[in-house]
Amino acid sequence: MPIDAVPPPTRALSGIQPTGRFHWGNYFGAIRQYIELQPGDRQAADEAYYFIADLHALTTVRDPAVLRGFVRDAAIDLVALGLDPERAVLFVQSDVPEVTELTWLLMTVTPMGLLERCHAYKDKKTRGLPADAGLFTYPVLMAADILAYDATVVPVGEDQVQHIEVCRDLAGTFNHLYGEVFTLPRPRLVEGGAKVPGTDGQKMSKSYHNTLDVFEEPATLKKQIMRITTDSRPLEEPKEPEGDHLFQLFSLVAPAAEQEVMAELYRRGGFGYGEVKKKLVEAAGQFFADARARRAALEADPARVDAMLEAGAERARRKAGEVLARARRACGLDRTAPPPAAVARRKG
Amino acid sequence: MPIDAVPPPTRALSGIQPTGRFHWGNYFGAIRQYIELQPGDRQAADEAYYFIADLHALTTVRDPAVLRGFVRDAAIDLVALGLDPERAVLFVQSDVPEVTELTWLLMTVTPMGLLERCHAYKDKKTRGLPADAGLFTYPVLMAADILAYDATVVPVGEDQVQHIEVCRDLAGTFNHLYGEVFTLPRPRLVEGGAKVPGTDGQKMSKSYHNTLDVFEEPATLKKQIMRITTDSRPLEEPKEPEGDHLFQLFSLVAPAAEQEVMAELYRRGGFGYGEVKKKLVEAAGQFFADARARRAALEADPARVDAMLEAGAERARRKAGEVLARARRACGLDRTAPPPAAVARRKG
Repeated sequence: MPIDAVPPPTRALSGIQPTGRFHWGNYFGAIRQYIELQPGDRQAADEAYYFIADLHALTTVRDPAVLRGFVRDAAIDLVALGLDPERAVLFVQSDVPEVTELTWLLMTVTPMGLLERCHAYKDKKTRGLPADAGLFTYPVLMAADILAYDATVVPVGEDQVQHIEVCRDLAGTFNHLYGEVFTLPRPRLVEGGAKVPGTDGQKMSKSYHNTLDVFEEPATLKKQIMRITTDSRPLEEPKEPEGDHLFQLFSLVAPAAEQEVMAELYRRGGFGYGEVKKKLVEAAGQFFADARARRAALEADPARVDAMLEAGAERARRKAGEVLARARRACGLDRTAPPPAAVARRKG
Repeated sequence: MPIDAVPPPTRALSGIQPTGRFHWGNYFGAIRQYIELQPGDRQAADEAYYFIADLHALTTVRDPAVLRGFVRDAAIDLVALGLDPERAVLFVQSDVPEVTELTWLLMTVTPMGLLERCHAYKDKKTRGLPADAGLFTYPVLMAADILAYDATVVPVGEDQVQHIEVCRDLAGTFNHLYGEVFTLPRPRLVEGGAKVPGTDGQKMSKSYHNTLDVFEEPATLKKQIMRITTDSRPLEEPKEPEGDHLFQLFSLVAPAAEQEVMAELYRRGGFGYGEVKKKLVEAAGQFFADARARRAALEADPARVDAMLEAGAERARRKAGEVLARARRACGLDRTAPPPAAVARRKG
């Protein structure tokens, strides 16, 4: 293959809201799939950027001590869950001020109508709730987050696809006005979220109070699992495992062989849900054992976490700085370098 | 007077749009009064910050080469007109990225309704014109511009008073949520703009095509002045000088003694407007002679202009950096410094 036919590197990017604690829905539905995009993993991109979205969180978390705690916890959790800061770039959003500069540059090419059509704002408005400009312009910040790192692939849930479209729109408009500055990203749909049931059988979600947290205290987790709602069919009756949320939860954390055995048991009948719950407690304990150990080690070593985030910020700033320099130059903000001739000609 | 009774220093701040060329309306109506706030001048503040608002200009100037030229010209013009970069801080808005960071922090406390009521956006919407998010969120950037330097006094025209109110609102909300971070500025109304007539007797304004530019080529300026519209009353008829726009323009640039003589001539009658125009050409030439010479010298020395703006940016960034650090710390973005205890307590 001639050298110029080598495909351009794929660069994955993912922003994770620091919400305090990740639950199984967050992990199995999204985070695990984000992490698998890091170089060296099975669905790997060539490069991967992961940021903890504290600037976005600011619109809802108003307590500074809480926000600091959330950000630190998110960093520790992600690394404990397998994100490798040597292979991927892990950083805190607000450590890269280039992103807010880009946000303004993009804001000047953002039609109001585009933001007015965005779900999060529209839903709030429809429900008659007061919205703030942070929520309204959030898709512009998100576009800057993506464009700042020349990301090519952004794994997102269904509800975020629209924001990737906004990002592509803004990047396209800017490029049209000023020349080829930004790389247009593609969304990669991550659908797992809907498949993780909560303790009541509905979709797992904080707002339903049916979550199992990834790093829950073992005693608490056991209690929560033992309280998982089940149906009242008699013990001996055979049951289909697939439609059962207890079985689904078990499948997330149990090795394939154990899943087989459990499915067999369901189909045969003659077992109590209490038994299954105990097996689930065990399987969950084993599944997250390594992550728990890594988490404890990180928790005990705050300096290491700080150093990790600093190193990540430095790498992220280097990349974002390059992109911002291109953008500033193209639109005429850089006094030391004239805009590219092609653009100047085209505009002249 | 005990030391703690010393009044806090006044800090004036003014942002000037780089529009290419300043006309007499800009100068006599605003810029001159801004410049007089620099330390050492007669209406002086203790400190003064002047920035060339290129980030704002981006919403309208889409040609990078044009924008670069406008910014450079604005800097040269301001210094030629008396702004002293030794006494005041002169810088380009986009050279202080701290301002866009602050913009985002403020955005998260900005109710949509506040921006929806702002004139510039409302007018455009009312006229059915498409607006972009840059215009809509411009008052937030403007608030950040002001708050970043702990400005206490902001000289503004009537149409900008609302934006200072928005700035005070946002600063107040942020302080209420996070502790005393921002200094609330006061507007100082600058009313001169309405008093500068254009060549047709209406208010001088680019949109009326009736401007006289401050640094116009002498030959062109002469032609423009000779074409100033006048009434057709006979030569000999006595005239009231005050209501006459030709006399008003003359008064802006002629020494007091010459104004007296001219007013006398008006009241006596028996003169032609052509005579007055010739006197106006002369007076304007003399009034702006020093500024023209300074302008030519600066124009010929681009390195000096660059150095001036770099030095200004450095001073501005130092101040904005302090303010941003306070804000980041207060809302929990700074991992190296916990939020002030008082706030953490109040929020806990």
